[in-house]
Amino acid sequence: MPVETIEWVGGMRGHARMVDQRELPGRFVRINCRTVADMVRAIRTLAVRGAPALGIAAAFGMLLGAKGIRTRKPKEFLRELGKAREEIGRSRPTAVNLFWGLARMEATAKREAENGTARMRRALFEEAMLIRDEDKVTTRRIGRNGARLIRNGDSILTHCNAGGLATADYGTALGVLFRAKEEGKKFEVYVDETRPLLQGARLTTWELKEAGIRATLICDNMAGAVMKARRVNKVLVGADRIAANGDVANKIGTYSVAQLARAHGIPFYVAAPASTFDLTIRDGRAIPIEERSAEEVTTVLGRRIAPKGVEAYNPAFDVTPRRLVTAIITECGVIERPNRERVRRHFGGQAKKRVRGGGI
Amino acid sequence: MPVETIEWVGGMRGHARMVDQRELPGRFVRINCRTVADMVRAIRTLAVRGAPALGIAAAFGMLLGAKGIRTRKPKEFLRELGKAREEIGRSRPTAVNLFWGLARMEATAKREAENGTARMRRALFEEAMLIRDEDKVTTRRIGRNGARLIRNGDSILTHCNAGGLATADYGTALGVLFRAKEEGKKFEVYVDETRPLLQGARLTTWELKEAGIRATLICDNMAGAVMKARRVNKVLVGADRIAANGDVANKIGTYSVAQLARAHGIPFYVAAPASTFDLTIRDGRAIPIEERSAEEVTTVLGRRIAPKGVEAYNPAFDVTPRRLVTAIITECGVIERPNRERVRRHFGGQAKKRVRGGGI
Repeated sequence: MPVETIEWVGGMRGHARMVDQRELPGRFVRINCRTVADMVRAIRTLAVRGAPALGIAAAFGMLLGAKGIRTRKPKEFLRELGKAREEIGRSRPTAVNLFWGLARMEATAKREAENGTARMRRALFEEAMLIRDEDKVTTRRIGRNGARLIRNGDSILTHCNAGGLATADYGTALGVLFRAKEEGKKFEVYVDETRPLLQGARLTTWELKEAGIRATLICDNMAGAVMKARRVNKVLVGADRIAANGDVANKIGTYSVAQLARAHGIPFYVAAPASTFDLTIRDGRAIPIEERSAEEVTTVLGRRIAPKGVEAYNPAFDVTPRRLVTAIITECGVIERPNRERVRRHFGGQAKKRVRGGGI
Repeated sequence: MPVETIEWVGGMRGHARMVDQRELPGRFVRINCRTVADMVRAIRTLAVRGAPALGIAAAFGMLLGAKGIRTRKPKEFLRELGKAREEIGRSRPTAVNLFWGLARMEATAKREAENGTARMRRALFEEAMLIRDEDKVTTRRIGRNGARLIRNGDSILTHCNAGGLATADYGTALGVLFRAKEEGKKFEVYVDETRPLLQGARLTTWELKEAGIRATLICDNMAGAVMKARRVNKVLVGADRIAANGDVANKIGTYSVAQLARAHGIPFYVAAPASTFDLTIRDGRAIPIEERSAEEVTTVLGRRIAPKGVEAYNPAFDVTPRRLVTAIITECGVIERPNRERVRRHFGGQAKKRVRGGGI
């Protein structure tokens, strides 16, 4: 720890390399993405996942797109780059960081268009590296801001994976726990396995174990019983998109956990970078929710668990309304009892400077 | 449908035969239990499961115990039978029907003790067949009583399996749905997969499909999102033990579903025979909750889903407090907003005649 979840190898003519998260924890392998199509496949199949990591994947995908463009005419270059942006933008709809990454890269290319394609390529490379480096700084700030909420003796429930594997290398919700651990705090963590793709069981337990944090795996349906038995006193999760009013889209099941936390008087915290806020969206109702294949529900790691022909419903995310959120932890601080006004104030004037496609 | 979940083959010197539910839905195979040890293994490993079916399994187990006793002395016979009762009683602690079945069989043997072991054996055989036959009658009465609550256009969420496979052949919660279907009502069902052992995915979807009822499988953590989206308007589950005040122990995850139903104003119904009531227990806090091996959580159908060495917590049941229960459907009728007084009145004077070990 920390592990480089997604990295760029070999300078401007290089390629992306990432931990293949579909294989964890059974095998630790890295895969290379050399084309936009490679990257789209990696995103769609969840070789790389997690909102902040998808921001970086989008930026690296644009870089791969730029690499494949032959023209020296800026206008044509921009048009070709726009195709790469569209292709990557169709990969997954919910995590706004993906669109934020794409928009930042496109804006960079446009800004340099008058200086010729060589400068455009150079600027794109620098912007992608900046997005990656910013993530490393941002997640550590989130960790520092959130660790203040963790107390000795805490037992924290988390859902899905908001760890190093969901970012460049450190994590949002888990970044908070890593930092608390570095500060010498004593606490333990309950981990929802997070069906259908088991990111909690496969990824989060692995990261916590590597960090020396005591983790207990539970099935998702045990969260209520665990709360009732007072085995946890806090909930801490990441986010895939946060609306202007503080409504939070995150991995399916998060909403159930938030409702259960409320029923038990347990605080529910969200940790996410500013890039996960989409201030173009008034509230959670407008957040697009990806529906994935029924097969992810009717199988587990490739083994069939239901009779053939059974229908299944597979929304990949749900929306937790802001009234169930105790606080959102960002790199700028903590937004308590989030609402439109507090979200706006939290980011100060920055909200006006945000790029299109969401994100601050 | 209906399938004989557990049956007795071949008269007084016969043996028990059951559908091996561990293999469903992949393979439909029946296994034979010829000794008490066979039956205990079948119960422990969940070849047979479901509270009412466990009552029958217990009775059949006692019959297998009686078959193995060589003495003609009633006192010695009773002592040997007591050993079988203890062995079976150690198999699974939560479903009270198991203890109810054991107690009924033991009381039968005692009642006939003065008439010699031949009469004892005959009485035990008749009592076990009666327990099985009663289940068939009881579940159909539950179905009839519960079907009145199902309306055209309903969409009903169920958790785990309270179907024919959890009883002799018809089911409690699913019996209600089978009856509603037989009455020509149009409705659909959402099925929680029910980790860790996936009884919902493996068994309930299979039974509903066989009955021609439209079923949609979801992961357990989707229940909240499905309720929020108004995709279900009722919840209907079975029970493993119901305390005198109406608190309901059922498969782990039921409590979470009940809390979520409450948060969304959705009625939460429980269907169970009188034998599932344990009036010796004041409230749910005193219901023993079985904890099963961590391996059931860290694996799915034998495939490992978490890193080696990760701890897991695996309570097999949880307790839903009566205040979250809209009504309990039994063979005697419907107990609305259950409490101690209403449960007592529901069963009239019968409560005083109950045998030891729970059950009416």
